Amino acid sequence: MELSILFTGKSPKYIEIYQEVKHLILHKKLLAHEQLPSKRALAQTLTISVHTVKEAYDQLLTEGYIYSKERAGYFIAPFEIDWLQQKQQPASMPEVVTANNIQFDFNNGHVDNEAFPYTTWYKLIKKHFMKDHLTISPWQGEDTLRLEIARYVERSRGVTCEASQVFIYSGTQSQFLALCHFFGPKACVGLEEPGFKRIRAVLQQCGLSTMAIPVDHAGVTIPQKNIHLLYTTPAHQFPLGMIMTMERRAALLHWASLSQAYIIEDDYDAEFRYKGLPIPSLAKLDQLQHVIYFGTFSKTLLPSLRISYMVLPTSLVASFTAFYLEQKSVVSKVDQLVLADFMAQGLFDKHLAKMRTIYRKKQQALLTAISVHFSAEFQVIGEKSGLHIVIKLPNRLSEARAIQLAEEVGIHVYPCATSYQHKTSEAMVIIGYGGLTLQQINDGIARLASVWQ
Amino acid sequence: MELSILFTGKSPKYIEIYQEVKHLILHKKLLAHEQLPSKRALAQTLTISVHTVKEAYDQLLTEGYIYSKERAGYFIAPFEIDWLQQKQQPASMPEVVTANNIQFDFNNGHVDNEAFPYTTWYKLIKKHFMKDHLTISPWQGEDTLRLEIARYVERSRGVTCEASQVFIYSGTQSQFLALCHFFGPKACVGLEEPGFKRIRAVLQQCGLSTMAIPVDHAGVTIPQKNIHLLYTTPAHQFPLGMIMTMERRAALLHWASLSQAYIIEDDYDAEFRYKGLPIPSLAKLDQLQHVIYFGTFSKTLLPSLRISYMVLPTSLVASFTAFYLEQKSVVSKVDQLVLADFMAQGLFDKHLAKMRTIYRKKQQALLTAISVHFSAEFQVIGEKSGLHIVIKLPNRLSEARAIQLAEEVGIHVYPCATSYQHKTSEAMVIIGYGGLTLQQINDGIARLASVWQ
Repeated sequence: MELSILFTGKSPKYIEIYQEVKHLILHKKLLAHEQLPSKRALAQTLTISVHTVKEAYDQLLTEGYIYSKERAGYFIAPFEIDWLQQKQQPASMPEVVTANNIQFDFNNGHVDNEAFPYTTWYKLIKKHFMKDHLTISPWQGEDTLRLEIARYVERSRGVTCEASQVFIYSGTQSQFLALCHFFGPKACVGLEEPGFKRIRAVLQQCGLSTMAIPVDHAGVTIPQKNIHLLYTTPAHQFPLGMIMTMERRAALLHWASLSQAYIIEDDYDAEFRYKGLPIPSLAKLDQLQHVIYFGTFSKTLLPSLRISYMVLPTSLVASFTAFYLEQKSVVSKVDQLVLADFMAQGLFDKHLAKMRTIYRKKQQALLTAISVHFSAEFQVIGEKSGLHIVIKLPNRLSEARAIQLAEEVGIHVYPCATSYQHKTSEAMVIIGYGGLTLQQINDGIARLASVWQ
Repeated sequence: MELSILFTGKSPKYIEIYQEVKHLILHKKLLAHEQLPSKRALAQTLTISVHTVKEAYDQLLTEGYIYSKERAGYFIAPFEIDWLQQKQQPASMPEVVTANNIQFDFNNGHVDNEAFPYTTWYKLIKKHFMKDHLTISPWQGEDTLRLEIARYVERSRGVTCEASQVFIYSGTQSQFLALCHFFGPKACVGLEEPGFKRIRAVLQQCGLSTMAIPVDHAGVTIPQKNIHLLYTTPAHQFPLGMIMTMERRAALLHWASLSQAYIIEDDYDAEFRYKGLPIPSLAKLDQLQHVIYFGTFSKTLLPSLRISYMVLPTSLVASFTAFYLEQKSVVSKVDQLVLADFMAQGLFDKHLAKMRTIYRKKQQALLTAISVHFSAEFQVIGEKSGLHIVIKLPNRLSEARAIQLAEEVGIHVYPCATSYQHKTSEAMVIIGYGGLTLQQINDGIARLASVWQ
């Protein structure tokens, strides 16, 4: 066989040979087991060096387009290619999100973005982003950060623990998922009804059986059936905002003890409490025996950081660690070191104190605006702590209609119905205020009233 | 009942009252339904203002220690507390990792940490760490980063795709887990044997059934049984390092097409190829019909960043997106924006070119050192690309013994046996060289030879 190759000069010669032979194979001009010219012969034909031909043939060999037989030469490899030629459907274009005109977003996941200590943070990044810190963190998280978190949950929430009980994740969902897998595919998980829909979604994703446990005025009620894990938000129930009473806390811990179940206490915004002292955590009462404690920096620092943590009872640490032996860290090492340093220097506590004042003012502005612009048929609930409240709507106004009316005047408020696993007759909306200024809060509420009243 | 409270002056008076009453309740000095003094009466007894007493009682009410009856007064709430008093076992101390004397760590997860463009990266962080960028990213990742990755995989690996097909995760394990859940609890997943143990660990964690698919000289073999998803590393098999032949690629794609299965192509270190042209990706041949493409920045930039991505066939995008509707992002927004900008400015390609030269030199140094210090009974395999090679040990030296001997002289090398799901008689060690200098590579290999030969 002769190969005639017209060099274009656009690539090195060996690449042009390689590409041409490949082209001929893929277009069935060269067939399986056909012999190629020897290196020497092709070099003479093309008046190039044998070395150049060798480079081209080596590449074809490596990719398996050709094979060689000792003392015989080079041959085209056999493989089916017909079906490779099928053309793919043109990819559908991504949906274009129509630019909307939202001016006031009462999103409960937003935080105040003026107050963040940018300069300090940036300096800490510069300090820690250096060559000794480029290997991956241990999967449980950086030791320094785990220690600072252990100290923090003790002083702020009375949860006495050691660094070895603290595990760092990239969000509440990912630590919840890790825990579910640890409890195994047969675990039954209880969720508050209504509750945090993103936690419910994780359970649906991993196919675990779940049970909706109703919430009453005192918090989540005592599960009547056999569940292994109960997810609850005692300090500020999501979304309704009530604080679990002491009586209920005691009863719940008693239930966990009797039924050998574990309670996940998600303390997602317990740092922000505006009336009275902080509510003691369930984990403190229980001394971390049946309670797994969840915390996050999404409310206290930045949601965009994606850093959360859980504190396990000591009885679970060894088996959890063994279960995740081959796990890799899911959080940037530099971010972990920066955060640990920020906490160790006392800057986190200082930031929290500052934010508490800011959010207290914002919440006051929100409640004042609501009392000024709305009649008593709109009832505010869940206002004792956290970064959102709930408004109960009067009978004449459905949840969907209220949200739609708000959108029409450039305001995002959020549904409660999606927090329910089952249907609900209650019409309520969630109003977050962390990301808006005092002025925006007042103007937004006034505008809401103009369409809802 | 009379309450006598001795103020210590260490806290505000209302807190001292609150604490004392709580203490009395928890120690059963005050019993369920017992009536507390009226606010007025207690104020008179203690000669303090009624307002102070009210603050204390309000806190006790909020926490549920007491309840109030209209026109009757305040009463101790009923709850069981006996079992709350149980003392927790003292937490076991975390295991102290004994300081070892490792001087040369041939870890295949390490990268060169001198060459990273620190200054450029800081500047980009400073540019993007600002108040407009503090909300959470879309769960799929930042649009700008998805677009840059789509462009990159097209120009570097021939994978034609749109930004909407790209999904950002915090590591290969997390994206693999997300995919497994998407395929459902009944999916059967094929893994290379030997293969990446951390992927096998994910399957064990989520309880999916797996099948070990043997690897031969041409890459992973064609699965004989019904599996839904096959995880493979065609460009540089992990750990053995062979490149999948064109014939096998075609056969594998044919199999996927016939059996309606999907292939996960993990291109974890395909960027680093030292001989010949880059090997075309399976995703390119397939035009992303049955192939799900995995990439990572752990080798090309930094393992500590925790940023990886997957590219889905267009046919899966809508259902995958619907499945993860309630998912939140798991990667820092600022890191995503910085990386996108780094790529858009052409700095990533520049960095890759630089790293290719550095790693080529390191690999050359490694191979030279091995050929100088070791006899032919030690065989090197998998050296055509990537950041690690494998050494086949002679019969007289077991894998465990080789690793132990190395440790004794301050060298970490890594086992191959753990990459096998079933037992193997092969004795091999994995030698990574990305994180060591040329000098360290040479000295480390010389020292290894001194104990292995």
